[in-house]
Amino acid sequence: MTVEWARGGPDLLVALDRGAGPLGIQIQDQLRAAIRDRRLGAGERLPSTRRLAELLGVSRGTVVDVYEQLLAEGYVESVVGSGTRVAATPAGLPVPHAPGVVAASPVSSPSLPAEVDFEYGIPELGSVPLTDWSRAVSEATRSLPTAELADEDPAGSRHLREVVTAYHRRVRSGCAAAQDAVVVSGFRQGLALALATLAQHGIQRIALEDPGPRDHDVIARRAGLDAVPVPVDDHGLDVGRLRETGARAVLLTPAHQCPTGVALGPSRRRDLVAWADEVDGVILEDDYDAEFRYDRQPVGSLQGLAPARVIALGSVSKTLAPAIRLGWVLAPPRYAAGIVEEKRLSCRGAPGLDQEALALLMESGRFDRHLRRVREIYRARRDVLAAEAEAAFGPGRLHGLAAGCHALLRLADGASERAVVATAATMGVRVNGLGRYRFAAADAEAEPDPLPPALVLGFGNVSEHQISRGIRVLATAVRRQTRTLGDDNATPPP
Amino acid sequence: MTVEWARGGPDLLVALDRGAGPLGIQIQDQLRAAIRDRRLGAGERLPSTRRLAELLGVSRGTVVDVYEQLLAEGYVESVVGSGTRVAATPAGLPVPHAPGVVAASPVSSPSLPAEVDFEYGIPELGSVPLTDWSRAVSEATRSLPTAELADEDPAGSRHLREVVTAYHRRVRSGCAAAQDAVVVSGFRQGLALALATLAQHGIQRIALEDPGPRDHDVIARRAGLDAVPVPVDDHGLDVGRLRETGARAVLLTPAHQCPTGVALGPSRRRDLVAWADEVDGVILEDDYDAEFRYDRQPVGSLQGLAPARVIALGSVSKTLAPAIRLGWVLAPPRYAAGIVEEKRLSCRGAPGLDQEALALLMESGRFDRHLRRVREIYRARRDVLAAEAEAAFGPGRLHGLAAGCHALLRLADGASERAVVATAATMGVRVNGLGRYRFAAADAEAEPDPLPPALVLGFGNVSEHQISRGIRVLATAVRRQTRTLGDDNATPPP
Repeated sequence: MTVEWARGGPDLLVALDRGAGPLGIQIQDQLRAAIRDRRLGAGERLPSTRRLAELLGVSRGTVVDVYEQLLAEGYVESVVGSGTRVAATPAGLPVPHAPGVVAASPVSSPSLPAEVDFEYGIPELGSVPLTDWSRAVSEATRSLPTAELADEDPAGSRHLREVVTAYHRRVRSGCAAAQDAVVVSGFRQGLALALATLAQHGIQRIALEDPGPRDHDVIARRAGLDAVPVPVDDHGLDVGRLRETGARAVLLTPAHQCPTGVALGPSRRRDLVAWADEVDGVILEDDYDAEFRYDRQPVGSLQGLAPARVIALGSVSKTLAPAIRLGWVLAPPRYAAGIVEEKRLSCRGAPGLDQEALALLMESGRFDRHLRRVREIYRARRDVLAAEAEAAFGPGRLHGLAAGCHALLRLADGASERAVVATAATMGVRVNGLGRYRFAAADAEAEPDPLPPALVLGFGNVSEHQISRGIRVLATAVRRQTRTLGDDNATPPP
Repeated sequence: MTVEWARGGPDLLVALDRGAGPLGIQIQDQLRAAIRDRRLGAGERLPSTRRLAELLGVSRGTVVDVYEQLLAEGYVESVVGSGTRVAATPAGLPVPHAPGVVAASPVSSPSLPAEVDFEYGIPELGSVPLTDWSRAVSEATRSLPTAELADEDPAGSRHLREVVTAYHRRVRSGCAAAQDAVVVSGFRQGLALALATLAQHGIQRIALEDPGPRDHDVIARRAGLDAVPVPVDDHGLDVGRLRETGARAVLLTPAHQCPTGVALGPSRRRDLVAWADEVDGVILEDDYDAEFRYDRQPVGSLQGLAPARVIALGSVSKTLAPAIRLGWVLAPPRYAAGIVEEKRLSCRGAPGLDQEALALLMESGRFDRHLRRVREIYRARRDVLAAEAEAAFGPGRLHGLAAGCHALLRLADGASERAVVATAATMGVRVNGLGRYRFAAADAEAEPDPLPPALVLGFGNVSEHQISRGIRVLATAVRRQTRTLGDDNATPPP
């Protein structure tokens, strides 16, 4: 049993047992105990999340979650410019027993399980076309040739590969054919397999968007790649900065950047392809949120623009449901065989019956019909979100709403994302700060440039009523936090 | 594009492009071209499969497949004691265009797609309970809570974990509870995740059965482990030899060894657990074929004997169908959290609806009913196989028939597995030699001890009629091969 000790500050001794349950829970429990036992005294400063993550060898997100939980429980407090400190009166606090349940806070009313959950990346679960799916599975059990009940071709069902590439050509302006496609269990598996293949091809460094989707840095390092950040501005990934990294691969969300919501601009797209040609590089396109656009024409897939340079990754986790767990990788010939071999060795394949069912669902037109239906639901939610946010925070605070199911709410300069998130949690609203999406450098010296504080609002699975209530709670949380700071000018009045 | 050149013999120059399609096909094409162009002359000896695999950096199985294909096509011939040589009259042979299709052979009648396929590990596909499955999926779409349509708990559905551990306790004498279980997409994914976790725990070397299942050496090395062989005898894995390896982990098939069919004997089981305690080690139990026993009581899972030392891996690929793609890992607490984290980072999870459907199918009793039904089918096939093999080859040639869906047919000493396999292929019967299951050492110096020649006969998906025909073809193939050798005494008359 590996027990690792880390000394992260004058009084902080955390022992992790990697075999004994989630590391975040272990860290939480030990920090709580240290605070209760007065080993960590009131006002004492905790190490930065980056520093503690480095000391303990865990992801920064894990430590951020721990701090947010302790903040929500009142054990610690967050002061802008001064980091996280042990709260003044933490003694006698109730200790939650069930991980993940927010305990009663000494500051505010007892919190409940989140009534409004702005978590990013969850689609409308109440509208998943379950009856259509069930029928498609039933049809698949009748139509799938018996031989295909055996271990599949590791590239995936030929039928589904034909159907998804036809869909990608039609809806996403792609130009891949069935032989370029590999069926996977979703975006994440496709990414892991593609990165392992790039490593086999001698690619050593990959650039990631900063801010960008979580965990991708960890996944890249597991594949043996060095991960480096590239900033994102109002036109998407900064290709000039990408050139400076020396990376030969980049992973990005061009259709609707996660989490800022911007689309990669036309000249950036061309410049990105030029970069790939210059360095004999590869672009991994996370075609996230591409199906849902409101204010303008859909932007085609990068894969259609530069098929020899782009590995496109898609899934039905957002369009149908994560519980279907099917996706695809569209790859140039030089990488396709390697991705198939990685898949064969790591898991053999995806469920044959489900693949046939998805092919049938997409062919039948029911998949498109579902997309049209949920697009209208999302459009209505997005309109409510825009109106409520303007009423509560004033104009111009909400960004990235032209597409998809999330937006960015900019807070006033000087506001503490973490404190707002924690306060909102005590009032039944779950939301993430932009800071959660920052790149976690392996090298702790490489602190990223600070970004203006903001909240990431996923509204895929939040009703219009919940959006209204959630935004009002966030406005209250912002007011409370700025009052704590003694800076009432930080946000406009609601 | 990585192009690697390997010089494997006086006239053999093979260039592999790892981005340009399956490596086996590339090697095949180049060897064919070299023989057609007379760069490799008649009678010229090819490198051993082990040597060529090492030179090209591919798995030995890939080279074995290439040689078997070229043998079946008549480009090369195999002579006992003399290896593989370019055939005497290879010029003018037709060249197959579709990979995997056996081309017309100059020696025998034109071959057809295999009419009888003794491939190992395929269950009876004609009896998959598709209607039951379809109903279970339909029920799952109604009963699964909406929230569980989102990304799952990476450990898997709680419901399925409860059901499979209850099943494992009831049918396999296990003693795991739901919190010890991780749902995976099948045996192979479970293995990859478990091995990655062992590597994280500082385990550096794993012992594998020799002969044993294919690809496990490659999978172990991908996880960063050093893989070493341990011989298998009539009582299963030789634990004395395991002790000599210095490994702290072992992967084995105790219920029905793959491919020899023996069960791990009772004293071996105890000794294996003692070994694990001695070295603070871990036993990975591939609970393959455990559900099907004919002549004696089922042997319980090793997991029930030593839960703190055993990681048990199971799936429904053999009991239902590979196309369902669900399995489980039952792990001691020290490893369970790591396996979950590996799963979360590599693929997020298994399909939620399928997990619920499998839980419902198992709870309903329909899964057990299906097992009873196919057990009778397998028992009948096994009886036909035993009778036909005795008629064709004489008594005592067939081994490992007490359980499961495969058996081992020992050939006469001196017979060439490879030649028999190739000849049978030209007559529409697909079968593998025992040699395909030998351990491929990373160190080419470590040649394994030779084993008596044998064929591995999977009969899970072969009808009784096909078994009769297949065995007769094999007897003919053996006769032809021994005649080629000028040794008519090598096999008894049919």
